[in-house]
Amino acid sequence: MKSIEWLGDQVRLIDQTKLPLEETYLETDDYTILADAIRTMKIRGAPAIGIAAAYGIALAALKFFGSDFQLFRSHVEHAINELSSTRPTAVNLFWSLQRMKNVLDTVNSVETARKKLISEALNIHREDEEMCRKIGEHGATLIEHNSTLLTHCNTGALATGGEGTAQSIITTAHRQGKSIKVYATETRPALQGARLTTWELLKNGIDVTLITDTMTAFLMKQRKIDLVVVGADRIASNGDVANKIGTYNLAVIAKHHGVPFYVAAPSSTIDSTTASGDSIPIEERSPDELMEGFGRRIAPEGIKVYSPAFDITPASFVTAIITEQGVHKPPFNFS
Amino acid sequence: MKSIEWLGDQVRLIDQTKLPLEETYLETDDYTILADAIRTMKIRGAPAIGIAAAYGIALAALKFFGSDFQLFRSHVEHAINELSSTRPTAVNLFWSLQRMKNVLDTVNSVETARKKLISEALNIHREDEEMCRKIGEHGATLIEHNSTLLTHCNTGALATGGEGTAQSIITTAHRQGKSIKVYATETRPALQGARLTTWELLKNGIDVTLITDTMTAFLMKQRKIDLVVVGADRIASNGDVANKIGTYNLAVIAKHHGVPFYVAAPSSTIDSTTASGDSIPIEERSPDELMEGFGRRIAPEGIKVYSPAFDITPASFVTAIITEQGVHKPPFNFS
Repeated sequence: MKSIEWLGDQVRLIDQTKLPLEETYLETDDYTILADAIRTMKIRGAPAIGIAAAYGIALAALKFFGSDFQLFRSHVEHAINELSSTRPTAVNLFWSLQRMKNVLDTVNSVETARKKLISEALNIHREDEEMCRKIGEHGATLIEHNSTLLTHCNTGALATGGEGTAQSIITTAHRQGKSIKVYATETRPALQGARLTTWELLKNGIDVTLITDTMTAFLMKQRKIDLVVVGADRIASNGDVANKIGTYNLAVIAKHHGVPFYVAAPSSTIDSTTASGDSIPIEERSPDELMEGFGRRIAPEGIKVYSPAFDITPASFVTAIITEQGVHKPPFNFS
Repeated sequence: MKSIEWLGDQVRLIDQTKLPLEETYLETDDYTILADAIRTMKIRGAPAIGIAAAYGIALAALKFFGSDFQLFRSHVEHAINELSSTRPTAVNLFWSLQRMKNVLDTVNSVETARKKLISEALNIHREDEEMCRKIGEHGATLIEHNSTLLTHCNTGALATGGEGTAQSIITTAHRQGKSIKVYATETRPALQGARLTTWELLKNGIDVTLITDTMTAFLMKQRKIDLVVVGADRIASNGDVANKIGTYNLAVIAKHHGVPFYVAAPSSTIDSTTASGDSIPIEERSPDELMEGFGRRIAPEGIKVYSPAFDITPASFVTAIITEQGVHKPPFNFS
């Protein structure tokens, strides 16, 4: 299963908002439709967003008619701006768009630019796949036989261009023959854990149990969790981690119960220009996502809602950060 | 607004599973329908369950035809057994049914028993109303002007025979003219916070903001919460608190951030025969409640689910327990 694919002149992605009830695909050659798919979380997960944005630029490059390079350049830069406005927190988005911009700086004809932009987008995708594989291998060294893991949100194939980040560790350990059991938090408000993680782990034949986010401390108190492994949307140079809202809850609870707390992400998630979590912008999502996301309105009209999409987990809560480069232990210094 | 009312020969209750979208009432003279309403959470909240169970016995007493006291007695005892099997965790249920049983022991005619049972059920209801008032007054002494409270689940009029337990503290402080702001967790899986607490606080003109359970640590880290106040379903004699799942998450997170954590409950919630939280039975709810409660199924078929309805917060996390008798500070000793 692939979250996103390049079809030569269009992009195909699985609509993650419809999972697990429907397996629907979106195919488009229009980067504005792709930008909208990112904004509405049809595709989500920091690495997958980066890949989608790169393909968006490739689509924009294909949709330019004419041979004036300056016009082409401003057309592509317009697309870069539009795509970079979709989600503010994940750094992979900006990192990926920066790579596409760099390509633009090395060429001076429409034809070459088009070819090189498409090829760079495919590179970004392939590199991500390879990074997932390596994260899985490095992380699996931390997983003992007969362990029970807790994970939050979705960090699998759907969230990346490969097998995932945190989830790649799970699937790799499983493939190595280690007997593991996974608890997946449903991950309110958008329920990526309930909808996506359980669906993927079930497909991979992994023993997975769904819980609500409210049940994590009770599980840890009963000593049912050996370790927590989550992804990241941005990591500051001091090791502070921005990730799906509820990650910090888990980190505090894990620390209290002496449960190791691992973060897995490609090194492109590390933002060395951000000194600490305090300067990471936190996206707020629409109240409707919280109140009406699942068919039935759950709260009265007129109610105020606060809905940050991410939170910041200080580095002091993180046992190790796993990237494609290896297992990084504290003190973290990514500057 | 009353969660439950005695109409002379039947009981009327607001169907809490339909709130906040529909204000539907259930009227019945059949205690088995009332037992089912407790089981399916049409009426919930430890004190309200106790009141409903007492009214159930009153209904059973009315539904007996004949004058043989031994037959009457076994008919009523059968009803007591059925009602006591509805929800295992809340102690108020057993406490209330025990009071009805005690009445049965003091009489020997059907006519007197019937009268006394109805009158005892009304007493239980009235006493609860009075307890709510006193809890509100004692608790409000702890609330300063311009404070922001966080509450979990629903502990208001819907959960009790009066103005609530934890929520009575909120409404009392508000009525005293203190400027307060409330964050209500949605309280997965059954969403009592989103559906009921916001609805009640809005009706009372209190500034309330809905959040998901995943957002509590991030709020506390931002110093946006001055205190947490929750209810209880059973309190052990050492002060350990069984309450809605997610309460222990909140307690750990509050302690880490130095936020006071208050528990409010009538003294009937204290079970002096239970030494500690370890021996409190924890009800598990149906997976469907977790997976299908939003109107649309949120997880794939075949997925395993773990859904404890309550968790145990050790006494060491509790700043004070507020009952109708006053503010109890640690060390707690309710034996």
